[in-house]
Amino acid sequence: MNPFIGSASLVLYFVTRCQASGTDIALDAKATLLHRIDSLNLLIYTCLLTLTVLTIWVFKHRRVSWLHETGLAVIYGLIVGAIIRYAGSTNQVTYIDAHPDANSNYNLSVPPDIVRFHFPDKQMSSGDVPVPNKTYAYSFRGEIVNVEQNEIDLKATFDPEIFFNIILPPIIFHAGYCLKRKYFFRNLGAILTFAMVGTALSALVIGSLMYGCVQLMPASLAASFTFLDTLYFGALISPTDPLTVLAIFSQLKVDVNLYAMIFGESVLNDAVALVLSGAIQNYEKRYSVDGGFEITAFLAAIGDFIGIFSLSLLVGALIGCLTALMTKFTHVRDWPLLESALFVLTSYAAFLIAEVFELTGVVAVLFCGICQAHYTYNNLSADSRNRTKQLFELLNFLAENFIFTYIGVSMFTFPKHHFDPWFIIAGFLTSMLGRAVNIYPLSFLLNLGRKPPIPMNFQHMLFFAGLRGAMSFALAIRNTVSEARQAMLTTTSLIVIATVVLQGGAATHALAYLRIPTGQGQNDENEALPYRDVRSDTPHGGGDGGGEKARLARLWGAVDSKLLKPLLTHARPPLTETLPSFLRPLGRILTTTRQYTQSENSLRRTDSDSDLCIDEPQPVPTTIDPQQLWPGLVDTRISVEGITGSNI
Amino acid sequence: MNPFIGSASLVLYFVTRCQASGTDIALDAKATLLHRIDSLNLLIYTCLLTLTVLTIWVFKHRRVSWLHETGLAVIYGLIVGAIIRYAGSTNQVTYIDAHPDANSNYNLSVPPDIVRFHFPDKQMSSGDVPVPNKTYAYSFRGEIVNVEQNEIDLKATFDPEIFFNIILPPIIFHAGYCLKRKYFFRNLGAILTFAMVGTALSALVIGSLMYGCVQLMPASLAASFTFLDTLYFGALISPTDPLTVLAIFSQLKVDVNLYAMIFGESVLNDAVALVLSGAIQNYEKRYSVDGGFEITAFLAAIGDFIGIFSLSLLVGALIGCLTALMTKFTHVRDWPLLESALFVLTSYAAFLIAEVFELTGVVAVLFCGICQAHYTYNNLSADSRNRTKQLFELLNFLAENFIFTYIGVSMFTFPKHHFDPWFIIAGFLTSMLGRAVNIYPLSFLLNLGRKPPIPMNFQHMLFFAGLRGAMSFALAIRNTVSEARQAMLTTTSLIVIATVVLQGGAATHALAYLRIPTGQGQNDENEALPYRDVRSDTPHGGGDGGGEKARLARLWGAVDSKLLKPLLTHARPPLTETLPSFLRPLGRILTTTRQYTQSENSLRRTDSDSDLCIDEPQPVPTTIDPQQLWPGLVDTRISVEGITGSNI
Repeated sequence: MNPFIGSASLVLYFVTRCQASGTDIALDAKATLLHRIDSLNLLIYTCLLTLTVLTIWVFKHRRVSWLHETGLAVIYGLIVGAIIRYAGSTNQVTYIDAHPDANSNYNLSVPPDIVRFHFPDKQMSSGDVPVPNKTYAYSFRGEIVNVEQNEIDLKATFDPEIFFNIILPPIIFHAGYCLKRKYFFRNLGAILTFAMVGTALSALVIGSLMYGCVQLMPASLAASFTFLDTLYFGALISPTDPLTVLAIFSQLKVDVNLYAMIFGESVLNDAVALVLSGAIQNYEKRYSVDGGFEITAFLAAIGDFIGIFSLSLLVGALIGCLTALMTKFTHVRDWPLLESALFVLTSYAAFLIAEVFELTGVVAVLFCGICQAHYTYNNLSADSRNRTKQLFELLNFLAENFIFTYIGVSMFTFPKHHFDPWFIIAGFLTSMLGRAVNIYPLSFLLNLGRKPPIPMNFQHMLFFAGLRGAMSFALAIRNTVSEARQAMLTTTSLIVIATVVLQGGAATHALAYLRIPTGQGQNDENEALPYRDVRSDTPHGGGDGGGEKARLARLWGAVDSKLLKPLLTHARPPLTETLPSFLRPLGRILTTTRQYTQSENSLRRTDSDSDLCIDEPQPVPTTIDPQQLWPGLVDTRISVEGITGSNI
Repeated sequence: MNPFIGSASLVLYFVTRCQASGTDIALDAKATLLHRIDSLNLLIYTCLLTLTVLTIWVFKHRRVSWLHETGLAVIYGLIVGAIIRYAGSTNQVTYIDAHPDANSNYNLSVPPDIVRFHFPDKQMSSGDVPVPNKTYAYSFRGEIVNVEQNEIDLKATFDPEIFFNIILPPIIFHAGYCLKRKYFFRNLGAILTFAMVGTALSALVIGSLMYGCVQLMPASLAASFTFLDTLYFGALISPTDPLTVLAIFSQLKVDVNLYAMIFGESVLNDAVALVLSGAIQNYEKRYSVDGGFEITAFLAAIGDFIGIFSLSLLVGALIGCLTALMTKFTHVRDWPLLESALFVLTSYAAFLIAEVFELTGVVAVLFCGICQAHYTYNNLSADSRNRTKQLFELLNFLAENFIFTYIGVSMFTFPKHHFDPWFIIAGFLTSMLGRAVNIYPLSFLLNLGRKPPIPMNFQHMLFFAGLRGAMSFALAIRNTVSEARQAMLTTTSLIVIATVVLQGGAATHALAYLRIPTGQGQNDENEALPYRDVRSDTPHGGGDGGGEKARLARLWGAVDSKLLKPLLTHARPPLTETLPSFLRPLGRILTTTRQYTQSENSLRRTDSDSDLCIDEPQPVPTTIDPQQLWPGLVDTRISVEGITGSNI
């Protein structure tokens, strides 16, 4: 301790010669204060999540099932948000009105990114030492609509970009990474119909109805909404997020096909809605800039939708395959930490690459997740498999609950809410109608060519499972510059809260009321009996177009098992056996020693499906000659999908 | 597909009636652009980290050891930073000069948080439709020093607060969570001396010398540095980050006590330097505001230092113990996901609580990590143990490499660098001197009372392991408002880069040159032989004050094994046996059934030390009556610490 105390006099000698600038110190203090506010905001959410975790434990312990953790997170968020809002303002945000420099010859039609603020610019009134005039940078935050509410701007709110860069990617990736692909592919027709056609239809119906409703409202409101605004609202409120319902399904062991339809649709319609809302925004830009013939802009918007969706899908799938190649041909699996890091980094890169090229990162990360599970997962070391699964499970849990907590808190603290009772009521009604238009007519069309048909009580359940969630909220809060957008945010938040808490809470009763059989056991052999009967009855699909679908699916199955799986993983048969003879030398380069030597049994054990999906011994379909299409080990689920003959 | 195309005419009908505001659309476009820039920035770092991972794999594969992943991350960062800097500016940041409203009667001496910017405020020159005047919020970014460099402001840089809220906590927590506590406690005296006294001494020496150097430089520079500035520089450049050296140590199986000293010191001196720099800043504020007697402010600063350090320690330890209680008395371990989430959330809460109360989150999270490992870890389910260990290992890996990549990139892209060759040279020389002043005199003092003494080649190695790293950089980049601070940032970045790359690369040669024995095997029974000899020779500590230290350590050992471990974990003996008889009823409440029933063997297996530390069968010291202090299972490392008798 000697040197410390002994040096006091030395310090004092120097300190008397110090003179720090007053402004610098004040700025230090301000930086500290801002840091404390940041920390406090984060702490609020950390404590809320801790509370949620503990309460959920109590609920699970006591077998309470009428409230899912997300519903609880929303409720806790609302309570704490209200407390923060009304407990008095402690953060004093200082502000000064400013005008552009009169002499500068600026020529911007849009507010600048940075304001160079000259301060203090006049003698202070108190007669102090004159402060030297300095220039400070101020960056753009947004339009000020309601001046009085400004002081809660700093309260427990975050930049909406955080949702898109930090919170959504792990949620969506996790959905793709643990998609129960067997049942997903079996119901692919219905899932794609609901997710693609249904979501677009729902967005259109909601958008049109909302526009009609808005026209009937007081003139001031009607003027602030364009049809594109309401269409955008339709797109953002269409995706579903049936977390609560699915949690109850898996607890009560509801029919796996119903589970797969609801889960698969919700995974894909997030992606569809995101791309759709992007296309609407692009249309808005094109239309207003060109002012030309509308049909061009409209067709361009459809092109956007299809192009962006498929390019994003491609980016995600390519990155997934690239990771598979890297993990196959390097021995990075000897260092599981490096391997896991590589896996996480490339998966996140898929998201970012898509975003950089103005595609949709969420779609990319979703299909990246599916590819990672399908190919890369097989190459990983046991340690990395375990680590990545557990990591994304945990991240997904935290991110999901954070977003729902935030929905609750921001209801009270986010400064850009605009409560408009008419718009809210219209939003609730039209979003229900939009869901109905998605499910019932499309189920009717599907049932024309689908055997067995989707029974009526399943349709009701699909309708009922139309909870709104994270994606709707993230899209709504992303852009709140205009009053119309703010009214949309408020309505969306309320719809999310209501559906998650009320519909989520009533899910068990709905199951009972609709007489949907439960307790079948996801691991049970018999759960898919009707489908299996159909399978042996009508092996080649039961409807018009079914044969076509089955052929496509079979083609994909052949490509997957003969080319992709042997190329990207250590799966057998190796490329040397599946490629045409003139490509054999290439095949030899791309085949690992492990691929030659390992037995099929050990491979079977390490195949991703058995790990990630519901474990069910997969019977080889007897009516198709397996040798024709699937020599050796086969992704038999493809055949199953073909056979059930779901078609659009 | 029907509904989609069929609805085109309906859409077109409405669209003709649309008229979106031009400004709103332009703002949308701007938000999209900003998002793309954000994504691109993140993508750059993601790709850099991927590249680092792959290169490191190649290096490990080929047994190259002269470049650690952090060194590689810095080098890649430098290359990419240079490319970004000189590849031409693509981000057009628009800016307008602004002045405060002449009519408003503001009375601020410090620039405001928010500027309410009235725009466009004049007729646009192009004679367009007049844009309505709106008010936009602009938030404070910092002082503009060099106007021309402003356009690279958006390039691959992040808010420095990200380091303190996101990047540092997992690194520090991981250090605490996997501290090899056995050897840490055995060398506690030396570690504390180097970390506490040494860091303060080093900061003082560097600060004083730098102040002297600055005085000899051109007058313009001398005027911008106060003594407190240079003292702050001393504090931020003093903490060490010997990642590279430690990686080589564990690869070459260097003496575990040397490893423990270097690692332990680097963990603690991060905490010390952070608190010290905070105390210096507080002193600055007090001194300039009061203007009173300096000795008061100086004593207050020392009080700050001690108070903040111990309160932060307390916060962290309490949160750790609270988590232990939660995991002990609830059955949350039946749901490992909830348990892991709880663990992560409470650990992060420790950081945030400390920050909110103006304590030091890093210190809190460090001691929280130590407590979590010591108590909570024993209560966790096997799944959660594995998951938390792997999670923090991965987070630590990513965070560490990110920060080093960022150091490299920001060297070129961060707009607030101030290159001053004299200051840089002085910084390099004084930081080496500061390290020497830390190690050699204190080793001399330590050796007076320490048996066996720290040999000279160990001292040289301790000196050599004084690499600077993440903490120095984070402290330097946190505040760059003044020119002095910017020169410090530049110098710190260069010192970090040079030490990590050059010193890190030369570590193997240094080991050979200093003839430090390698290949002893960390799992080897014989590695600590000299210490074990000492133990049986002089059981009660070998020096003046040694007995006192041993008594304190013994007291702590008794409290830990009789009170804390039985209270916080399922360890035996239960509180019913260790508490005085009148407290037995309370003890019965706080004891779990598991504690009564489980055998000591199964407990032994689940004790955290055997999992987290180097596995070494711990012999019970024979010269002390174990029954007196450690009935049943004992933390024998406490006794070891007492016996080696390291003292300050």
